[in-house]
Amino acid sequence: MTALIVSRRIAAIHAATPVLEFLTASPQALRQHKPGVANFLLGNPQQMPLPAFVDALQHWSVPQDKDWFAYQINGLEARAAVATTLRKRRNVPFDPDDIFLTNGATGGLAITLGAVVDPGDEVVFISPPWFFYEAFILSSGGVPVRAKVDRTTFDLDVDAIASACSPRTRAIIINSPHNPTGKIYPPRTLQQLSAALTAASERNGRPIYLLSDEAYSRIVFDGCPYHSPTAFYPRSFLIYTYAKTLLTPGQRLGYVALPPTMPDREQMRGALVLSQVVAGFAVANALLQHALADLEKLSIDIAHLQQKRDRMVGALRGMGYEVHVPEGTFYLLPKSPWADDRAFADVLLAHDILVLPGTWVELPGYVRLSLTANDEMIDRSLPGFAAAWQYATAQTPDAAKK
Amino acid sequence: MTALIVSRRIAAIHAATPVLEFLTASPQALRQHKPGVANFLLGNPQQMPLPAFVDALQHWSVPQDKDWFAYQINGLEARAAVATTLRKRRNVPFDPDDIFLTNGATGGLAITLGAVVDPGDEVVFISPPWFFYEAFILSSGGVPVRAKVDRTTFDLDVDAIASACSPRTRAIIINSPHNPTGKIYPPRTLQQLSAALTAASERNGRPIYLLSDEAYSRIVFDGCPYHSPTAFYPRSFLIYTYAKTLLTPGQRLGYVALPPTMPDREQMRGALVLSQVVAGFAVANALLQHALADLEKLSIDIAHLQQKRDRMVGALRGMGYEVHVPEGTFYLLPKSPWADDRAFADVLLAHDILVLPGTWVELPGYVRLSLTANDEMIDRSLPGFAAAWQYATAQTPDAAKK
Repeated sequence: MTALIVSRRIAAIHAATPVLEFLTASPQALRQHKPGVANFLLGNPQQMPLPAFVDALQHWSVPQDKDWFAYQINGLEARAAVATTLRKRRNVPFDPDDIFLTNGATGGLAITLGAVVDPGDEVVFISPPWFFYEAFILSSGGVPVRAKVDRTTFDLDVDAIASACSPRTRAIIINSPHNPTGKIYPPRTLQQLSAALTAASERNGRPIYLLSDEAYSRIVFDGCPYHSPTAFYPRSFLIYTYAKTLLTPGQRLGYVALPPTMPDREQMRGALVLSQVVAGFAVANALLQHALADLEKLSIDIAHLQQKRDRMVGALRGMGYEVHVPEGTFYLLPKSPWADDRAFADVLLAHDILVLPGTWVELPGYVRLSLTANDEMIDRSLPGFAAAWQYATAQTPDAAKK
Repeated sequence: MTALIVSRRIAAIHAATPVLEFLTASPQALRQHKPGVANFLLGNPQQMPLPAFVDALQHWSVPQDKDWFAYQINGLEARAAVATTLRKRRNVPFDPDDIFLTNGATGGLAITLGAVVDPGDEVVFISPPWFFYEAFILSSGGVPVRAKVDRTTFDLDVDAIASACSPRTRAIIINSPHNPTGKIYPPRTLQQLSAALTAASERNGRPIYLLSDEAYSRIVFDGCPYHSPTAFYPRSFLIYTYAKTLLTPGQRLGYVALPPTMPDREQMRGALVLSQVVAGFAVANALLQHALADLEKLSIDIAHLQQKRDRMVGALRGMGYEVHVPEGTFYLLPKSPWADDRAFADVLLAHDILVLPGTWVELPGYVRLSLTANDEMIDRSLPGFAAAWQYATAQTPDAAKK
């Protein structure tokens, strides 16, 4: 892409986002909707949608008045439903006026960055990251700054985050439970994080905001309690999507919520609405807003997801793979027997198994598996995982390529 | 808003967008969904949605496979449906790969600006404008530059546009049929515009893009032919929404289409998809993509809209108002009997009539009426329009306020 033709910004984002090529043109991507594959590639549904989800769409498609599909920014009833749920689940008095209905968590992330970040502002993100954090930060005009997790515990490295903060730091993006490690950051870490961000904000004379990407906050296992970073640091944005509990990522619905501890909320409300407007009325569809209170009650079977996790962890370990037990999210992270995880992903591909090479989430030497794969896919995949392990451990990738 | 709290960009957009206050907090805005008003305020439905629209949502809510609500950027079938329609309606061989499915025209506008505009680039827009063009341009980092229409004919003033072009000009936004004047720019004007933009691009050594906001291209009266600016200037983006033919602006569905004459299309396709991604997966919902081919066939009753136009023009002229006959769009533009159109809008409000003061679309001395008001509202409004005229012409606004 040349800046003569497209914007310099988009050209720079393109250069910084090689994963896009993998996600759109790799053999894995091209086969992901084909029959016969064991698809662990992305957090996509590998089974039919929840019938109650379809019922809700059909039910709320029927207009109850002439305004049913009129211009709607953040509808009062949907905001009230979100606030009620958050009050119950979090025991925090969220205000309906502090809820902003978005096209999923990514929509929430984009409008929040737009509301607080200016060109030249630094935004810290955690590595390994979700694919597109860096691209989103660049899109807002911000400068992405990487802070690595502790590679032993996968916990946040608060010292690394404190070191990453500069006089130009404006925001940090935290994702818990964390894609791809499945880590839920514990209260002690979040307290330390809050202290570090508070100290840096005071030093800078300008607040640093915490964007809490809580997409997986209801995808937790073993009865693990979920700890929201927004309960520890006042200047936080809670960013949520229904795409994980409903497993309907193409039907964009989520929200941004300001906790009642957020200072200057009146200004921030205005900024978020305006950010929604100038992003192109980046609000959830009228139908989804009407359906929200019903959709809020639905979830895929988390116990079944946990069973799939346990089955895969047991089976992979039995074959020789090193793999830890995630506390939440859709993902497993076995170590690749080869340092070159892309080469190993291609070995799995030869067995009709689609996985994400860890390289694309800054974790070379791992592969990421989405547990949204269905039972039949898991059945089918196990001999392939075993054969790939045996093949890979019998030779180096260089030898294998010959 | 202070830049310490929110981004400087959002604070600047807020300062440049006083209409937001009118649209959210004016007496007109606060009464727009109340019973008893004759609502001419915005292009919102004042009657129940089309039954076939509801049927389509319900029908396409039923999943046909497990991927029905999976991640979807620009779905092939919906793109093909758009390309087929454009080929038929425009007799231009649009390619399905050049269609990008968006959250309405405003979503299309935002992603297109993101794909081509960099901070400091100038973007020309036409005054009177749609409310938010200036805000959208600022949001992309661009510098808004105003070019006024010919105030006698409401046609584009190509000399004014040519004068507005500088070495930093990157794009121009054209809206035909034009909100609020209802003007369809004629071929001769569009040829002149194309020549002016081509000359300026050559002079600059960098292309100027034309963003053609064609939201109202199917809302035309008297069998007027529609002339798309994209047929006259190769570096054009066709930006469309279904919100006008379906009268469902809260159910966001539209597209951006590259005409086959657009140079460097391969790069531009990549830039637009990436612009969709970094705007927060700013794509039409899966359900709306599935339903698109059915929705494409539906329309509100344009003949009835034209009847409402003719009735209102006749009635208002009979009372003494000066009002021209729009060729398309939802809008009528009577002259206000007072130079202070906001004061006159408040007189109408006292008769339970909601109209938009022309000030908010840079046309002081006019009021804008949306013909989406229903027949019963029109019936009810006529005595109020007559009484307001008599009241206003009997005294000056200053006297009236005493």
